[in-house]
Amino acid sequence: MSDYLAMDKATLAAERDQLQAAYEAFAQKGLKLDMSRGKPAPQQLDLSMDLLKIEDYKDADGMDTRNYGGLEGCSEARAYFGEMLGTPPEKTLVAGNSSLNMMYHVIDLGYRKGFSDSPKPWKDCGTIKFLCPSPGYDRHFRITEDFGFELVLVDMTPEGPDMDQVEKLAQDEAVKGLWCVPVYSNPDGYTCSAATVERLAKMKTAAPDFRIMWDNAYGVHHLTDAHEGCPNLLAACEAAGNPNRAVMFCSTSKITFAGGGVGAVGLSDGNMADLKKYLFPMTISYDKTNQLRHVRFLQKVGLEQLMKKHAGLLKPKFDAVAETLQAELGSCGEIARWTKPKGGYFISLYLMEGCASRVVALCKQAGVVLTGAGAAYPYGKDPKDSHIRIAPSFPTSEELKQAAELLCIAARLASVEKLLAS
Amino acid sequence: MSDYLAMDKATLAAERDQLQAAYEAFAQKGLKLDMSRGKPAPQQLDLSMDLLKIEDYKDADGMDTRNYGGLEGCSEARAYFGEMLGTPPEKTLVAGNSSLNMMYHVIDLGYRKGFSDSPKPWKDCGTIKFLCPSPGYDRHFRITEDFGFELVLVDMTPEGPDMDQVEKLAQDEAVKGLWCVPVYSNPDGYTCSAATVERLAKMKTAAPDFRIMWDNAYGVHHLTDAHEGCPNLLAACEAAGNPNRAVMFCSTSKITFAGGGVGAVGLSDGNMADLKKYLFPMTISYDKTNQLRHVRFLQKVGLEQLMKKHAGLLKPKFDAVAETLQAELGSCGEIARWTKPKGGYFISLYLMEGCASRVVALCKQAGVVLTGAGAAYPYGKDPKDSHIRIAPSFPTSEELKQAAELLCIAARLASVEKLLAS
Repeated sequence: MSDYLAMDKATLAAERDQLQAAYEAFAQKGLKLDMSRGKPAPQQLDLSMDLLKIEDYKDADGMDTRNYGGLEGCSEARAYFGEMLGTPPEKTLVAGNSSLNMMYHVIDLGYRKGFSDSPKPWKDCGTIKFLCPSPGYDRHFRITEDFGFELVLVDMTPEGPDMDQVEKLAQDEAVKGLWCVPVYSNPDGYTCSAATVERLAKMKTAAPDFRIMWDNAYGVHHLTDAHEGCPNLLAACEAAGNPNRAVMFCSTSKITFAGGGVGAVGLSDGNMADLKKYLFPMTISYDKTNQLRHVRFLQKVGLEQLMKKHAGLLKPKFDAVAETLQAELGSCGEIARWTKPKGGYFISLYLMEGCASRVVALCKQAGVVLTGAGAAYPYGKDPKDSHIRIAPSFPTSEELKQAAELLCIAARLASVEKLLAS
Repeated sequence: MSDYLAMDKATLAAERDQLQAAYEAFAQKGLKLDMSRGKPAPQQLDLSMDLLKIEDYKDADGMDTRNYGGLEGCSEARAYFGEMLGTPPEKTLVAGNSSLNMMYHVIDLGYRKGFSDSPKPWKDCGTIKFLCPSPGYDRHFRITEDFGFELVLVDMTPEGPDMDQVEKLAQDEAVKGLWCVPVYSNPDGYTCSAATVERLAKMKTAAPDFRIMWDNAYGVHHLTDAHEGCPNLLAACEAAGNPNRAVMFCSTSKITFAGGGVGAVGLSDGNMADLKKYLFPMTISYDKTNQLRHVRFLQKVGLEQLMKKHAGLLKPKFDAVAETLQAELGSCGEIARWTKPKGGYFISLYLMEGCASRVVALCKQAGVVLTGAGAAYPYGKDPKDSHIRIAPSFPTSEELKQAAELLCIAARLASVEKLLAS
């Protein structure tokens, strides 16, 4: 291997033929692997099996969690997840098994009712725009797309969303908010800097009811001992006189059980009042028994200890992918770069423009399912068709090595094809 | 005691003074009781403590319920709750801990997206009306009120909603649906007759996307061995060529844990497709671990056996109320009548016009909280101010006897006051 960009066409053609043969050989293996979603592996889920042994049902304040009541969550859970979010219990609402669900509801609240600081409900505002730092989490963008909002692409940087772009776009009063995964972002693994948080909190927005949807999904999901983190957005917004701007989310989906965990929201008093009023007709209470079970279990095993065990399972997988990428693409010149996250669930692979969808198709044909090309961009369209999201958590290390090798062959093949065609 | 309606004013005045004294004596006791909501008693919740011992997580089809996926619910749960609803698994969606939540979502689906058979989303239809058989469940009416629909009062009868009224009102294309608790209705305890079900299924509706919100909350909640039931609405609607009209709900809120149970929906293929598409952006999956835990627990203890134990705890409470009502109001003439349900969670007490809110206020002042007068009617307004909902499940029998005695004194006092004022 050597720098593809320095090769003449004949050398490229020979390389292509070699890669084609290597690809065919892989396709013969009949692989059936899925690297498309950030699903925890069964071994990770096994770490929390003792959760199912917790039979407690009486909250510290005497509440019988088995019964109706307590829309905001049981008090122990509000305290515990408040600490995780960085909010006091009274600014913390603990919900069901899905923080995504709560994000959807916060958007619906803005849409159908409007917040207390909304001039009117968003549904009555004509065009509504939402800022989507990209690449980002497809399910975030999908929520705002579902409500008919216009998704506005903002570049993601290693410091978080490109704040020059955000500050400029926020001057448009149709822009009602921003999605953000502040720590170990999906899919780049970037963490917002203190400067980004401060600018987000202080910036002027034309919309008085601008909302930052702060999904701290990976806040404790470190892969190394160098823990990344960022300042508390709600505290920063309160200090800047914009307390309602921040709506923060976390969940145990990648701490305990992806499908049977607990989600929580941290928000200002004003937003809390709006949210409770909005939720009241919808449900009588969330599953507080599961909330209490989680608190007692996490206190028993220790959150940090548990996350270290997750890291012990995940790190070798991330390493396997990184090593393969380095070995197979590292000396091909500037046809590819990738992120080296210190936490979270994903690696971003950036290829030459126009190559991503070809690579995803090649991999699929050979039995390896990747997240669809473009999925991490608004409307599922990567303007450069260059980004691929790698989710190493679910397959075994052995499977991952195979899948990553195939991915590299496909990436090189697509690059050579592109260079030959140019 | 004798017939109040036959008393002259002087006798009534003497009776009033006596009742006033009895009331004062009660108020001195400093009672603190709540008969306002249909909350299971702790002893009922205790019946399902073995639920918390179930550590199963692998569904019969091999699905790991702890992980993401399976928006429709895990397969065993779809089969189990399908049987409860009377729908095959593929027409059954099993959700989180709240069937009310699913009702809200079905209404929001109609509102924001419209169903496949909707000419347009309900939000774009101008005035939308919803039929509310009354007295009914306040939280049903509240959902449609929250969406800004006009609530139309329909009389409730011992056979179900007054079908002459329903059929006539359904000729208005602004009328998009009907709420109904088909078995042991809240609060009367009435069960829809086969004739009612057939008329509901067959009637002509001006709106092609008319929906019957069929909340079978008490389908297995018998208090006696004379089990009431009614025909399967979805089957009737399918036979009548109106498969999408029926949306059926059930939950384990009053079978296992009120706050930590499982809710399910039974609906046509068309509605299922619409609902799944609508739910997709909102959540990745419901808590399938809790779903599986429920199936395995309920299969182990036997649903019928468990419900018999509930009845064993509930029946004496219903009897205590009924006996007190009979003893204290039975010989006062036509100032009161009440329902004698064979299942469910409530008793309806009907007083002379204009007396209900006075009675609720009197009871509250003496330490007994009843459901607010009018709560069972659209907008919380009982046109006759005559209905009181009694929820005997939560207090102990001893407390109930006291509360019912106070209620009777208040009812007699309010009646005498009214007669004196007329």
